[in-house]
Amino acid sequence: MDIYERSLARHRETRGKIEIRSRMRLESQDDLSLAYTPGVARPCEAISENPAAAWDLTWKGRTVAVVSDGSAVLGLGDIGPMASLPVMEGKAALFREFAGIDAVPVVLDERDPQKIIDIVKAIAPTFGGINLEDIAGPRCFEIEDALQDIGIPVLHDDQHGTAIVLLAAVMNAARVTNRTLGQLSVVINGAGAAGRAICRMLTCTGQDPHCVPVGKLRICDSKGVIYPGREHNSPIKEEIAQITNPEGEKGTLRDVLNGAHVFIGVSKGGLLGIEDVESMGHHPIVFAMANPIPEIMPEDALKGGAAVVGTGRSDFPNQVNNVLAFPGLFRGALESRATSFTSGMKFAAIQAITSCVAEPTAGLILPSPFDRSVAVRVANAVAAAARADGVCH
Amino acid sequence: MDIYERSLARHRETRGKIEIRSRMRLESQDDLSLAYTPGVARPCEAISENPAAAWDLTWKGRTVAVVSDGSAVLGLGDIGPMASLPVMEGKAALFREFAGIDAVPVVLDERDPQKIIDIVKAIAPTFGGINLEDIAGPRCFEIEDALQDIGIPVLHDDQHGTAIVLLAAVMNAARVTNRTLGQLSVVINGAGAAGRAICRMLTCTGQDPHCVPVGKLRICDSKGVIYPGREHNSPIKEEIAQITNPEGEKGTLRDVLNGAHVFIGVSKGGLLGIEDVESMGHHPIVFAMANPIPEIMPEDALKGGAAVVGTGRSDFPNQVNNVLAFPGLFRGALESRATSFTSGMKFAAIQAITSCVAEPTAGLILPSPFDRSVAVRVANAVAAAARADGVCH
Repeated sequence: MDIYERSLARHRETRGKIEIRSRMRLESQDDLSLAYTPGVARPCEAISENPAAAWDLTWKGRTVAVVSDGSAVLGLGDIGPMASLPVMEGKAALFREFAGIDAVPVVLDERDPQKIIDIVKAIAPTFGGINLEDIAGPRCFEIEDALQDIGIPVLHDDQHGTAIVLLAAVMNAARVTNRTLGQLSVVINGAGAAGRAICRMLTCTGQDPHCVPVGKLRICDSKGVIYPGREHNSPIKEEIAQITNPEGEKGTLRDVLNGAHVFIGVSKGGLLGIEDVESMGHHPIVFAMANPIPEIMPEDALKGGAAVVGTGRSDFPNQVNNVLAFPGLFRGALESRATSFTSGMKFAAIQAITSCVAEPTAGLILPSPFDRSVAVRVANAVAAAARADGVCH
Repeated sequence: MDIYERSLARHRETRGKIEIRSRMRLESQDDLSLAYTPGVARPCEAISENPAAAWDLTWKGRTVAVVSDGSAVLGLGDIGPMASLPVMEGKAALFREFAGIDAVPVVLDERDPQKIIDIVKAIAPTFGGINLEDIAGPRCFEIEDALQDIGIPVLHDDQHGTAIVLLAAVMNAARVTNRTLGQLSVVINGAGAAGRAICRMLTCTGQDPHCVPVGKLRICDSKGVIYPGREHNSPIKEEIAQITNPEGEKGTLRDVLNGAHVFIGVSKGGLLGIEDVESMGHHPIVFAMANPIPEIMPEDALKGGAAVVGTGRSDFPNQVNNVLAFPGLFRGALESRATSFTSGMKFAAIQAITSCVAEPTAGLILPSPFDRSVAVRVANAVAAAARADGVCH
């Protein structure tokens, strides 16, 4: 059986991937009186008097909801909430495994952005954080933006988790090739959730003190480089264009890749040839993250002269895997009782991930997804940044 | 330390009562590929093609959400969603312990009934059932009614769980005193969630084939017996009045209790004296379920001549405890993949509970809350009734 049929069989065998367990003994009448009526009235009153006590007396302080509407699931696209449940359960299992976090899938039969916002606000008292997952653009941006002041941290992982791991990879790739980010010209192909988040982190909008800007940045979509005033620009693309390309440079992906140092592919596979990498500047760095088929296969990128190559796949070196970021990000936020994710926390996560590889080489710029120390280091760095930013309960 | 301070200490020690565990091994790259990308795409597709597969491939078929707005919590009243979380976690722990069900607390910062209805509908794809809990009347009725056709069973436990256990107790009390329900005159004091549900089950609205009507039924609130057209009757109370008291009998609780056979108290403690029980008809049956102080203490009811006495407390005989009903109710509904709770399923639960006591006596009309066979018998009866009623996926 191939991986897909084996996965189906294993899911059928376990009927899903997560379950709820009791942490309190319930064997005697005394146990019942302590866990439930009448004793439970006391922790209820304690929280009623001081809401912060919920972090100590309930699961809130160790719990994240994984919220999706099932509209942009993996490579499957819009398969709806129920069909997305296996992915959200998988994410919850990873949260447990890599960060000891109790994560609860919550899939929503709702598409209106404002209603999704209202639902997440309403359920927020139950949880210590919200991981938005596999929600299509552009409503993923509107939803995440509107949920930044609800008192618990909210993160759309497809944007920031991917951007954080990718930027850690780019930083170590720059180090391997003896350059600073400021010396690099970067081309991103793909203006979706991940593309926009990478762009924001590389361009220091709002004069962010944590940001290290790259020398030049261009973003392409299927119609080529995005520039201000381009016909049919969405508000998001117009924003990206204003930030990255105020000069109004036009052209195809191939045009702007010519002479660039870094290619970041977050769109679809098979777009690039060996000659495209050959056209890039010195020591090309190629991240071809489309799944399952990368924008260019690693062996071809190397033939074209790439100095460092990464993909989203586990069967090639330098896998850009969100699991290096999200467990530690939420663990750090929960431990510090952060009310939101600041850019300081995100950049702290990037630095923690880069520091997990003591001596990066072309074939090893990121730690292994199975290195359990990564989540701990990311969590500690994120918690410290949250405290430094003063965003803790 | 008293039970309350011990409960607080235990909650602080365990940081709440439930946690999420992984059911699938996640130790190797192969494990990760089966539980998450890329393998997980296959169970997603299987559900996308056939939504019923979600019951086999995810936690849906074994999961219940315990939903509350925190507006009517235990004896504490309106303490809000976050302060109600310890109760909902306790309920989830009981679901796990007594029925092997994975229950998830979802507390809502929302009070508008329509919005609560919309939220529950939206999150429904995640779960196999919804347990509404500690929601104040009258919106608890409106919310439960509006959620009967969402494709998964929805039950407000404060109404039906209590009514089911209470009716099982009344049936066995009738048996102990050699009478049928049809021979009994019943007075309910309290027209809240539980009172209305008990009333509905005892009065066969809609010509329900499962119902065994009592001889006579009167319901009182703090202003005495409820009758049609009484000043300031809420719609719920007017409905109750039309059903139970079309004759328009008026009077105090004391008046209507005179000569009645059964007293059911679901309101507040200390209302009855010995002389009130003395005024009742032959072999009085008294269920004084107010917590923590019953409407009359069992020793006083016995002094007044009561043949059978029950309370809501664990330190007296004949405890009417919801835990005898809700675990088996939801277990049976999940096992049969029921789309709703029919009255046939509720009456099946009543009969299953009564049958758990082979030879009821005045001191033992209900099984022990710790008898693990009760949930199994209730579940089997409820699942069979669901299949008989043809309400299964």
